[in-house]
Amino acid sequence: MKVDIEQRILAVNDELAEANRRLFAEHGVFVLDLMASPGAGKTSTILATIAALRDRYSIAVIEGDIASKVDAEKVRAHGIPAVQINTGGACHLESAMVRRAVETLDLGEIDLIIIENVGNLVCPSDFDLGESAKVIILSVPEGHDKPYKYPNIFQVSEAVILNKYDTLSVFDFDETEFREVVRSLNGQVPVFPMSATTGDGVAAWAEWLAARIDAARDGDAS
Amino acid sequence: MKVDIEQRILAVNDELAEANRRLFAEHGVFVLDLMASPGAGKTSTILATIAALRDRYSIAVIEGDIASKVDAEKVRAHGIPAVQINTGGACHLESAMVRRAVETLDLGEIDLIIIENVGNLVCPSDFDLGESAKVIILSVPEGHDKPYKYPNIFQVSEAVILNKYDTLSVFDFDETEFREVVRSLNGQVPVFPMSATTGDGVAAWAEWLAARIDAARDGDAS
Repeated sequence: MKVDIEQRILAVNDELAEANRRLFAEHGVFVLDLMASPGAGKTSTILATIAALRDRYSIAVIEGDIASKVDAEKVRAHGIPAVQINTGGACHLESAMVRRAVETLDLGEIDLIIIENVGNLVCPSDFDLGESAKVIILSVPEGHDKPYKYPNIFQVSEAVILNKYDTLSVFDFDETEFREVVRSLNGQVPVFPMSATTGDGVAAWAEWLAARIDAARDGDAS
Repeated sequence: MKVDIEQRILAVNDELAEANRRLFAEHGVFVLDLMASPGAGKTSTILATIAALRDRYSIAVIEGDIASKVDAEKVRAHGIPAVQINTGGACHLESAMVRRAVETLDLGEIDLIIIENVGNLVCPSDFDLGESAKVIILSVPEGHDKPYKYPNIFQVSEAVILNKYDTLSVFDFDETEFREVVRSLNGQVPVFPMSATTGDGVAAWAEWLAARIDAARDGDAS
């Protein structure tokens, strides 16, 4: 019975997610669903990505949070439109929330929407938002064993950002083991070591994303 | 309708949580529900707490995870009984899962049960497990702004462990602001700066916990 209810909620979500996906495709907008633990550096990664790509693309941000609007304010301070969604307790965004946020944006003027999902390695992986790609950020201080414990979120992601890479020497993080487990879960998914705050490694991630944005503009979005 | 279903699930959970609480009180067992983000150092904190208190108390551990049993194995390697719960995708433990795990333990022989909840700053705060106290671990790399974003988990906690305190110089963590926000959410809740891996600061946390365990043994558990 509980499973039935969950499946019905997911079915309703998925239907609206497909409608979102069609809307984004019509406008050639690439939509990134960025997922991570609390404190892994989602907002910093968004700001670093904006800095790397703002001269080439028109960017908007949708910020998901349980409460507060500090992240949207941080993004707006850089002159980028940002819509804040407060989930009011829910541990993930849903496609209907994204739809309401998108309706406040002018999709004809936008190439890239970055969605910052709620800080959580569990719930967001189950919910299709209609995004073009889900990407997970894991930060070095969280430890290399996280893919063992949260396999699903690594399986649904099309890229893995390994953030706070500049702190590798401070923590007991086995990068080889991390990469092996990620590969066992998700084949050839690219891993981008990066420090969003120092900027090291951001260029490689930004180029991967740019190629995907270009494909979406050319009507070739997956 | 969705809210009704959630409330019913919570009501069933709370009823069994009260039964757990009575069972623990009968045996004078103190039960700690340890909550944190993935990678904040829950297992390391448990191992440090065991090292500090194992000469004075008989301890058992219940490990909650989405998948894998690596944490229970780490605890057992220290000669401490550990029961692994896999939630099969759920982002938090529930009182029924704890009950099944507890039934494999000899409560008459145990003073302290430490429950490691699923790594998550959202879901675990809503679910009463019948514990004596909930405690949150925040780690320095996660950032001082987390209480703004996840207020509920700080409000339901009876102590706050600030872990990986030895990395304070590496991160832009404003401890004063962190303490002010925590205080605004939860009055006089104690904050314990600690490094579970170096052992610094563990003694103060362990003494706070020991006082609570003694009170539970004397039949004075809250």
